Amino acid sequence: MTVGEGAGVFPAVTAPDEQVHRQAVARHEQLTKPAGSLGRLEELGVWIAACQGVCPPRPFARPRVVVFAGDHGIAASGVSAYPSEVTGQMVANFLVGGAAVNVLATAAGATVRVVDMAVDAATPDRVAQFKVRRSSGSIDREDALTAAETEQAIAAGRRIADEEVDGGADLLVAGDMGIGNTTPSGVLVAALTGAEPVAVVGRGTGIDDQAWMRKATAVRDALRRARKVSGDPVALLRTSAGADLAAMAGFLAQAAVRRTPVVLDGVVVTAAAAVAEQLAPGAKQWWVAGHRSIEPAHTLVLDHLGLRPLLELDMRLGEGSGAVAALPLVLMAARILTEMATFGDAGVSGPGESETSSGAPEVTAG
Amino acid sequence: MTVGEGAGVFPAVTAPDEQVHRQAVARHEQLTKPAGSLGRLEELGVWIAACQGVCPPRPFARPRVVVFAGDHGIAASGVSAYPSEVTGQMVANFLVGGAAVNVLATAAGATVRVVDMAVDAATPDRVAQFKVRRSSGSIDREDALTAAETEQAIAAGRRIADEEVDGGADLLVAGDMGIGNTTPSGVLVAALTGAEPVAVVGRGTGIDDQAWMRKATAVRDALRRARKVSGDPVALLRTSAGADLAAMAGFLAQAAVRRTPVVLDGVVVTAAAAVAEQLAPGAKQWWVAGHRSIEPAHTLVLDHLGLRPLLELDMRLGEGSGAVAALPLVLMAARILTEMATFGDAGVSGPGESETSSGAPEVTAG
Repeated sequence: MTVGEGAGVFPAVTAPDEQVHRQAVARHEQLTKPAGSLGRLEELGVWIAACQGVCPPRPFARPRVVVFAGDHGIAASGVSAYPSEVTGQMVANFLVGGAAVNVLATAAGATVRVVDMAVDAATPDRVAQFKVRRSSGSIDREDALTAAETEQAIAAGRRIADEEVDGGADLLVAGDMGIGNTTPSGVLVAALTGAEPVAVVGRGTGIDDQAWMRKATAVRDALRRARKVSGDPVALLRTSAGADLAAMAGFLAQAAVRRTPVVLDGVVVTAAAAVAEQLAPGAKQWWVAGHRSIEPAHTLVLDHLGLRPLLELDMRLGEGSGAVAALPLVLMAARILTEMATFGDAGVSGPGESETSSGAPEVTAG
Repeated sequence: MTVGEGAGVFPAVTAPDEQVHRQAVARHEQLTKPAGSLGRLEELGVWIAACQGVCPPRPFARPRVVVFAGDHGIAASGVSAYPSEVTGQMVANFLVGGAAVNVLATAAGATVRVVDMAVDAATPDRVAQFKVRRSSGSIDREDALTAAETEQAIAAGRRIADEEVDGGADLLVAGDMGIGNTTPSGVLVAALTGAEPVAVVGRGTGIDDQAWMRKATAVRDALRRARKVSGDPVALLRTSAGADLAAMAGFLAQAAVRRTPVVLDGVVVTAAAAVAEQLAPGAKQWWVAGHRSIEPAHTLVLDHLGLRPLLELDMRLGEGSGAVAALPLVLMAARILTEMATFGDAGVSGPGESETSSGAPEVTAG
């Protein structure tokens, strides 16, 4: 399969429904509150209605988190505070519900699926169905993936999005798990935004100054290779990403093709999203940013995509945790449009509609 | 009942449990995530555990919203976009579940109680049990309340907090409903922070420039009267607040006396909270700020209390809506401490604990 003809070529993305968008804006004016007084919850509700193509929007039936797990060859350069075997251990932890994303998803009414794209350990068959390889090439000196592996990973992400949407998922979250994965993410962000290497290097899981310097060196070296292909998303994923990030990019692009709204997480997922926007221009219309991580590259890539996050809680865990923490706001925003009374329903006066001259109405409801 | 001996004198507030606070910090270090990686969700969980006096914290049994409704004499000066009869109409809307706070509370798993402290309309007996009077004096030229009314309103707020805590409420939110109520709130904030009148005057429900100037004039005139008593919280409530705000202050102070955590809402509730902190010093240890409203006085009073809000969503509705929008984060923060696996439970390596030399463990969980 040749790059440019394969999994990296997406159908055109269509926009959320503009007419329903206008209906939702108009409905907000009719609800029993000053117009605009719910701020970003109103914008969010309008976006959901437009994504669903119906106003008021339907209750979400199946909010779904997909965690893409993979190891990274660059981890051997000492860019993380944790050893690579944690990736596989955490896959096991996701499967028994012990990780942060499990707890947050349960609280938010979402379910979690884990897919092993490139974990450097054996994982149960049911999560390894789409596994491309173990780990990735060390991106400071070699490609992360072969061309065929890249195609395979993007195709897997597309397939996973299709499976989820066909299975009823109507709100998607991508999460990440992989020791070392903020290094390739930083490279993708620097390649796409033109930022200097040091501007994208954060503390990840909590590295010390020595590890930070190793990480900065790795990003600098990897970026020399990435910049040459920054206009070609499939080549960029091959050179500088990994199977987990490539699958995420395919997943996020395909979610937009399938007209399914997505809540983005932190720097890893948003870096993959920036590549997905290259793969499928306009895909970002189907995304909302769940939170702003303290990783510096996250703010760069959010600005690049023109996305303003819902939460700023100094989180930096990944797994989809920041997106899932924002899920209740998305669900609330939809319910406001669906469940609130209108001025007409409730017999509430609008601005300037004083009835004082004819006597204030007595409240009789019970 | 004399001021200084009555409802305005509170028992000393004790702090949340410092030992449990330390236990919760230590527990966060043991959970399967990099230490600190959940950012403010970790701090929030630690605070909840310390408030409850147990780590891990108990699931919240009864999150409860109490909306304090009241009209304000100053509304006759044209400081609001809406006529005063909307207050009573909205009380009726709360009772049938049609308002924003009802929808948000249902989504968050909380229930809503409405109390009419001073609505300028008849309301059902079950919400008017604590009603002090109709409306309030026009605070630009007269006291809002008599001394006896002030005592009665504070006592009512204390009583309501006691009723709720005795009824099992373990997480409280105060909300406001009252046309014109951002005017007395702005006066309280200016009196307590030393801010200039124009610095506390916002657009409220969405007033035009003419109404803004009337509101600024009202605040300026009311502030002349308020500054004289800004060190005496009961006198300040009498002079410049109203029965709804006075009851809220009593409620928030008593919640702290009863060691019950509170999520604060926007400018009206936080203005009352600043007076409650005067009434019962240390009460603010039992509060978290749910959100930052776009009303300028809200930022001033949050800074005055040293509180950093969880959400910044450009909301400006009141009713407790911003606090309730933040409730899922509070519930999630507690569940993280209670439900996440520890490194030991999950067999996940900590930072630097590489087992590579003895072979990476295979993942076998299912």
